[in-house]
Amino acid sequence: MRFAAFFFDGVSRAFHQGPSFSKLVVILAASSGGLVAYADSKSDQAIESSQVAHRKKKMVVLGTGWAGTTFLKNLDSSLYDVQVVSPRNYFAFTPLLPSITCGTVEPRSIVEPIRKIIKKKGGDIKFWEAECFKIDPTNKKVHCRSNIGTNLDGNGEFLLDYDYLVIAIGARANTFNTPGVVEHCHFLKEIEDAQKIRRSVMDCFESASLPNLDEEERKRILHFVIVGGGPTGVEFAAELHDFVSEDLSKLYPTVRDLVKISVIEAGEHILTMFDKRITKFAEEKFQRDGIAVKTGYKVVEVSDKDITMTNASTGKMSVPYGMAVWSTGIGTRPVIMDFMKQIDQANRRVLATDEWLRVRGCDGVYALGDCATISQRKVMNIFMRPISSSPFSASENIKREDISLIFKVADKDHSGTLTVKEIQDVLDDICIRYPQVELYLKSKQMSDIVDLIKDSKGDVQKESVELDIEEFKKALANVDSQVKNLPATAQVAAQQGNYLARCFNKMKESDENPEGPLRIRESGRHRFRPFSLYAMDQAMVKL
Amino acid sequence: MRFAAFFFDGVSRAFHQGPSFSKLVVILAASSGGLVAYADSKSDQAIESSQVAHRKKKMVVLGTGWAGTTFLKNLDSSLYDVQVVSPRNYFAFTPLLPSITCGTVEPRSIVEPIRKIIKKKGGDIKFWEAECFKIDPTNKKVHCRSNIGTNLDGNGEFLLDYDYLVIAIGARANTFNTPGVVEHCHFLKEIEDAQKIRRSVMDCFESASLPNLDEEERKRILHFVIVGGGPTGVEFAAELHDFVSEDLSKLYPTVRDLVKISVIEAGEHILTMFDKRITKFAEEKFQRDGIAVKTGYKVVEVSDKDITMTNASTGKMSVPYGMAVWSTGIGTRPVIMDFMKQIDQANRRVLATDEWLRVRGCDGVYALGDCATISQRKVMNIFMRPISSSPFSASENIKREDISLIFKVADKDHSGTLTVKEIQDVLDDICIRYPQVELYLKSKQMSDIVDLIKDSKGDVQKESVELDIEEFKKALANVDSQVKNLPATAQVAAQQGNYLARCFNKMKESDENPEGPLRIRESGRHRFRPFSLYAMDQAMVKL
Repeated sequence: MRFAAFFFDGVSRAFHQGPSFSKLVVILAASSGGLVAYADSKSDQAIESSQVAHRKKKMVVLGTGWAGTTFLKNLDSSLYDVQVVSPRNYFAFTPLLPSITCGTVEPRSIVEPIRKIIKKKGGDIKFWEAECFKIDPTNKKVHCRSNIGTNLDGNGEFLLDYDYLVIAIGARANTFNTPGVVEHCHFLKEIEDAQKIRRSVMDCFESASLPNLDEEERKRILHFVIVGGGPTGVEFAAELHDFVSEDLSKLYPTVRDLVKISVIEAGEHILTMFDKRITKFAEEKFQRDGIAVKTGYKVVEVSDKDITMTNASTGKMSVPYGMAVWSTGIGTRPVIMDFMKQIDQANRRVLATDEWLRVRGCDGVYALGDCATISQRKVMNIFMRPISSSPFSASENIKREDISLIFKVADKDHSGTLTVKEIQDVLDDICIRYPQVELYLKSKQMSDIVDLIKDSKGDVQKESVELDIEEFKKALANVDSQVKNLPATAQVAAQQGNYLARCFNKMKESDENPEGPLRIRESGRHRFRPFSLYAMDQAMVKL
Repeated sequence: MRFAAFFFDGVSRAFHQGPSFSKLVVILAASSGGLVAYADSKSDQAIESSQVAHRKKKMVVLGTGWAGTTFLKNLDSSLYDVQVVSPRNYFAFTPLLPSITCGTVEPRSIVEPIRKIIKKKGGDIKFWEAECFKIDPTNKKVHCRSNIGTNLDGNGEFLLDYDYLVIAIGARANTFNTPGVVEHCHFLKEIEDAQKIRRSVMDCFESASLPNLDEEERKRILHFVIVGGGPTGVEFAAELHDFVSEDLSKLYPTVRDLVKISVIEAGEHILTMFDKRITKFAEEKFQRDGIAVKTGYKVVEVSDKDITMTNASTGKMSVPYGMAVWSTGIGTRPVIMDFMKQIDQANRRVLATDEWLRVRGCDGVYALGDCATISQRKVMNIFMRPISSSPFSASENIKREDISLIFKVADKDHSGTLTVKEIQDVLDDICIRYPQVELYLKSKQMSDIVDLIKDSKGDVQKESVELDIEEFKKALANVDSQVKNLPATAQVAAQQGNYLARCFNKMKESDENPEGPLRIRESGRHRFRPFSLYAMDQAMVKL
């Protein structure tokens, strides 16, 4: 290394504008949990130990998508020692991905470097471009691995301690284990995917234009297939159609008549998650544009030249294609599946959190965005509770129901029956804790709980009615039908990120002044309102 | 294929705006030399055979860089049946490549689709996105291979016939066979190279910022090495410096002091091809900026972490690095090397053309831009000529000199001596055919050939002097020292493209009215002036 020293002779002054490196070492030591040797100097050790006493809680945020980035932007990062881990050092405005595929928008227009966001917030957040490959909730650690060709000791892995872990790593494309999809289809989840699709579209036009091909082969190459009639697939099909008809057909006049775009959807319609009028409009528009919408076809295999699918009436069949985009929804990432096994969620498809975005059974772990779903507590929920509240005699359990506890909380005079007034007194809290109650009233076009009681008990006078527990149960019997999972959209992820950041920002205040609804099973109030879509002040969401 | 037909049911109308496909078949048949079966229909055959009679000459253009694209833009494509072959379906404004590496400029801003250029010209040019991998001058064919994953019959290869072949495929990066360069270094010749460099720079900053690295390793990762002090390397070093100091040092405050940029140059100075004042300015500026310029170091090996080099005074040594860009000039592409073997140029480093950009010894083959050099005929050239001009007795050759023939042409009265007037009569033609004569006069600050004669014969009266052949030879003895190869720049390539297009456009007219200088070895005039830099009307160059 003789030469190395010679080479590094006093040149680094050029970029020197800030704090010295020794300060950095201390920050690293405090944050990365004993992995950096403290032996730098005596004084460093002294500073370090005094810091440990009042050190901030360590927060690790996994992911920089909609959920993670919105969380980060809204978090008061002075309150925590924040570390962000993501294989992408930027946030991408994903709804515009289909436009990247056809060059309508350039990638740089839809990305925002995470380090710029950090800098805007004062710079006391650390970012590691790496992927978390194991969550260890028992020891409160996450295992990470750099995805760049680094020469870290060993295999480029490192370990981070946390007090709070915010999991926002999103989902992966779901192939339903269909053979050939990973090898031959494009996905459309990342910027790189969109760029690859763009190159692939151009390649198809170029190769279809080559000499010595028969027309059948040219047609095959120019058959663009989109598997999945969800918003991403439909958006891409529309963008591609416009790209072909407005630009490519002029540049490739000899092959433009051979182009074909098909959307293959297993269900009966495309865009089923939206209003039926939207579905109808899209299907009609696609027909006018010459985009073939093939509903009721399930793709079972993809080879380099053919897509094989089954259909109820026609059976199995193959269709030749040139390029295919697979967009059939989202699946759980392996790291989350492993995590779910550790926390007794192995039998679930998706990681479940409570209404406060806390992962059940894990202290200090939160999950939001596409990697988790909120498992809404049901009014008719039945759960087991130890007879004695003492942990030493917790061997015997009895069955409890939420609805009985709600009745108990509402029945302030312990009369065994509820008056309308008693119900109305707790109704706001009930509706916050169990939003399905309000949704149910709305769905039945009822303005008030009294209507619900009337409905179950027959026509009665407003004030005089009293309900016993069975009547109360009967009145609320069907409200849980309104429990629905939130869609896996950018909007939901962003609102969750903002919600959770607000909770962390108000953690201290809410200890003294809880904001949430009445607790049903215990006394007092919940610290925060549960997460609910559109409930927050929209002006607060920094996007 | 039952389903295929069902799938293609009358949807292609969507992109139908132009000529029918049957017309395309005829065009292809006429152009690709019998490779497409003519059996389409009787009428097609009739059209085809009538076209063969007065069919245009087939021109194949290889390459879409500066030379190829400028040629294409300036060519009157109605005169020829033009086919363009290139692995890139766009022209790139390469001088801005270094700016792509740091995001100053976006790739789409510096590219122009070839098909757009073709469309502007009326669309009667065919473009194939493929690479020529063999030139066959004997049979006047080029062998091409598509570089896209197509499913052409066989291995995706096809053959094109030509009457005229314009080779403008540029050069490859020259590694001088240094071990490890291809594996570990970036080049900077294509858009993709620049994009890779950009990602690599970001990756270096991200990986140097990871936890658990010692400072030595961080320094290694942030050591950016540019091998080669030519315009490309220097430009990149400067761009990178600005990128680091203006942007990255703000986003990566913890590692900014560890960044180091080095330019390694085997020669004594950087930018030796330019004026010395430019070299001095660049070296001083780099020193102020903290960019290390290491001249006199020759890189002999590159590994994944170290660059090994030799230096006259210090011997062999290694320096750790994070990213390296190799930019030490250009080398000949394999297809050109193979072509050179076929035409007896195997002993040359670069493909040679005459002053009219014609490849010597190849009928109808032209080469321009970085893939060829003009081999300027020397005044003192000695060549062999058959005693008889009849091809049947060409077994005996005699030595001839250009200078003697020039003397003979100038000596109109066959007196055996040249008067100043006789010399002046042919001087313009001589200077066009042998531009070194004019350059020599300029370099000696002589305004006229009389000065040259004076210089060689001593002080004499202007009009009275007469030169015999030996005196004439003596006067011109040193002019050939001014013969220089043109630099491998975009400017030269573009001017050559424009020059050659103009020649092809005027091919017919120039038969009757030759524009060139007097022929020395034969009677009459050359068809065109030889190519010379800056000699053309600049307004004509469409860039």
